[in-house]
Amino acid sequence: MGEIANETISNMALERTIYIGPFVHCESLTELDVAVNGMIGVDEAGKLAFVLRDAKGKQIPTQEGWEDAKVVRINARHGFFFPGFIDTHIHASQYPNAGIFGKSTLLDWLNTYTFPLERSFEDLKQATRVYNRVIARTLSHGTTTACYFATIHVPATNLLADICQSRGQRAFVGRVCMDTLGPDDYRDESAQHSLDRTKECIEHIRQIDPDFELVTPIITPRFAPSCCSDSLALLGKLQAQTGLPVQTHFSENKAEIQFVKAMFPDSKHYSDVYDTAGLLTSKTILAHAVHLTPEEITLLRNRKAKISHCPASNTALTSGAAPIRHLLNEGLDIGLGTDISGGYTTSLLAEAREAVMVSRHRAMIDGDEAKLSVEEALYLATRGGAKVVGLEDRIGGFEVGMDWDAQMVTFADVGDEIGLDLRDGPVDIFGSLGYSEKMEKWVFTGDDRNTLAVWVKGRLVHAREVIQA
Amino acid sequence: MGEIANETISNMALERTIYIGPFVHCESLTELDVAVNGMIGVDEAGKLAFVLRDAKGKQIPTQEGWEDAKVVRINARHGFFFPGFIDTHIHASQYPNAGIFGKSTLLDWLNTYTFPLERSFEDLKQATRVYNRVIARTLSHGTTTACYFATIHVPATNLLADICQSRGQRAFVGRVCMDTLGPDDYRDESAQHSLDRTKECIEHIRQIDPDFELVTPIITPRFAPSCCSDSLALLGKLQAQTGLPVQTHFSENKAEIQFVKAMFPDSKHYSDVYDTAGLLTSKTILAHAVHLTPEEITLLRNRKAKISHCPASNTALTSGAAPIRHLLNEGLDIGLGTDISGGYTTSLLAEAREAVMVSRHRAMIDGDEAKLSVEEALYLATRGGAKVVGLEDRIGGFEVGMDWDAQMVTFADVGDEIGLDLRDGPVDIFGSLGYSEKMEKWVFTGDDRNTLAVWVKGRLVHAREVIQA
Repeated sequence: MGEIANETISNMALERTIYIGPFVHCESLTELDVAVNGMIGVDEAGKLAFVLRDAKGKQIPTQEGWEDAKVVRINARHGFFFPGFIDTHIHASQYPNAGIFGKSTLLDWLNTYTFPLERSFEDLKQATRVYNRVIARTLSHGTTTACYFATIHVPATNLLADICQSRGQRAFVGRVCMDTLGPDDYRDESAQHSLDRTKECIEHIRQIDPDFELVTPIITPRFAPSCCSDSLALLGKLQAQTGLPVQTHFSENKAEIQFVKAMFPDSKHYSDVYDTAGLLTSKTILAHAVHLTPEEITLLRNRKAKISHCPASNTALTSGAAPIRHLLNEGLDIGLGTDISGGYTTSLLAEAREAVMVSRHRAMIDGDEAKLSVEEALYLATRGGAKVVGLEDRIGGFEVGMDWDAQMVTFADVGDEIGLDLRDGPVDIFGSLGYSEKMEKWVFTGDDRNTLAVWVKGRLVHAREVIQA
Repeated sequence: MGEIANETISNMALERTIYIGPFVHCESLTELDVAVNGMIGVDEAGKLAFVLRDAKGKQIPTQEGWEDAKVVRINARHGFFFPGFIDTHIHASQYPNAGIFGKSTLLDWLNTYTFPLERSFEDLKQATRVYNRVIARTLSHGTTTACYFATIHVPATNLLADICQSRGQRAFVGRVCMDTLGPDDYRDESAQHSLDRTKECIEHIRQIDPDFELVTPIITPRFAPSCCSDSLALLGKLQAQTGLPVQTHFSENKAEIQFVKAMFPDSKHYSDVYDTAGLLTSKTILAHAVHLTPEEITLLRNRKAKISHCPASNTALTSGAAPIRHLLNEGLDIGLGTDISGGYTTSLLAEAREAVMVSRHRAMIDGDEAKLSVEEALYLATRGGAKVVGLEDRIGGFEVGMDWDAQMVTFADVGDEIGLDLRDGPVDIFGSLGYSEKMEKWVFTGDDRNTLAVWVKGRLVHAREVIQA
């Protein structure tokens, strides 16, 4: 039980591997696809070469050219492969504050807790310690892709990209742009500085990962209140020139929305601020989107902009309960975000649970149709997130040609013995359960102890224990 | 990491023990009391003999007669003793369904999930397996006292009492009375049967624990809709005769409240149904209390009736968000309940987190004054719960003469090393943090891995690792 040493991951030569056991992924927003006797072949490039849904009794090797392939088998009675989670919104730098927010709300929370912490990333020792830890934690929770906000610092942001690369986590890494709201000693001096420093980080990632195979730079205006219109416009132009993705915050809190209205009096609404700057694109990830008007929903749909739903954060900071089932009905693309440290958990599994719970609070007001099912929450955590980061053809499910970004999940079987071994993890299964119920057990009672191993692009990036035949 | 064998606990002779290290408990509803250099002496009866708040540099033994006492010391950089948690509402029999509830609400949930499971406790093998597991789990989460609903079955209920006794968990154990609502093959035949079987269970507990030192019988009408007025009246008389505590459900869900109104047309309101039957006493634990009228609040206060707040359950089943801060202001005594399996977690720490979260959802409607702090949630989980079960003089805090019902909590210190050992638990502390922030970290990011050892009445009942000097 622990982590894989750094050097193992980046230098590891991949060999053809056959994964044998049940696999589960999302067929659609509402339906799981379960293959109880699954067999998946992953090639030297980390891509799914074949997917057999019913391999019961099949000999290994089953495919020509796979005679000498390595075999990874699930031996536990209750176990399955599941796509890796995609965290579409997480502030890597805020991890030391996870769980610490008192009774604050967004704008006072930023000043009290967040800016002082982010400022400390001027110190690369702090960045080394925190970024290694948060990546180790998210990997241990099965997060194979993360959209990271770093800080305003170029060296620390580049370091975050380096660590993602060396630890093998797929990541979008953004230097935070903020030239207005923020303390004097923690903000960019000007719009031009915001742009220049963003370009420096893009260049760095281009050097370490030229094709953005694993790590991709992402243009990151913090949010409208902390960027002057010039800054937003420059970053919008940069997006148009580079085609890179964008991430920002949006419509999280009612006071913030009033603030934006006062700051941009000529804009029709919050969405219009980003749209005017050319930042509302199909590659834009908008974190929160709690308080949208019908007009804004239409605009977001037209622009194909993406939403990162962060339920734990939205409750913790009393921001509101986003009407996610409604936004899904309206045709928007939505993923989940832990939003550390507005949110308190690095686990996207816990975030899926919170998504279900927040939907119950919406249902108390809007009625039963507001409820999200566990299947829907798991879809948001995988396929939904893949769409949000523009990688729906590569990750989020198990189809031939996609990358093996996956986790092996197991549960303890409560037989007749009296003993309790906490290493088995917190999920207790009594007797036989269908997969729908197993997914409910996982989301509501599971944690990182149930994730035995995690792979990104075919590489093992975290393991408690891997059973090999 | 694991559990203490049964025989160890019940036969273990206690020796005088000195606990050295920081201790934290609740001074009041809103304030923590922290003694960084604490030293607590626990005598052979499991009672606190002395409490030193500043024992820095003190020699051991510090007190006459304690020269040969055993010493248990917290050696971790971030560790403290905390009172054991008091779970004021948990259905031990429903544990196999933890996390499984779909999109149901109370009344359909009972029929779909709950009654079929509870019926299976006719089988003592099922009862043995489930009850051992749920007690091992709750102990591992630091729950030193639990108010258990069992099922209608006398043998299985008696078995639950036996297992609490042998595993050393303080418990209130109630056979469920239900003679109306419920399937034909899972309910009492009559009010008289409800009474008689309740008496059988009381007698059994009197035999195994004559003074109710550890296990106490509790009169348990399921809730008004499942008991006819005769049944409620008979149980009310039994309470008056025996002075035993009572537990039931109350005002959980709006449909349930309508149901009660239709079933008891002569009653003024839900509270009046119990009051008329003599069941609204200072020893009555009312689970939920989500939708109270001002008149009911006044009646509950006059009767000194107690409330078990079950936030995870109330959200999961879309029952509502109880206005706990308001009820506290109104002077009611409130504890926390996991309400397995309306709730999904056996952890009262997680329930404290949910209490804070639900209070944020209330604050979205009622304003900031509805927010509970982490300190308040921890108070509800300890001192509040102690009042609810009528043991505020014995448990819930660390004062001379009280019982040593406690847990040892530790967190991982994130130093400069890069490694992550999942056995250290999920709480990461970067640098120095005040105790208020440590409590936030614990409630929002901690789990059973942070609870190294648990004691009830001075007996070690769960341990991952105990460090002895």
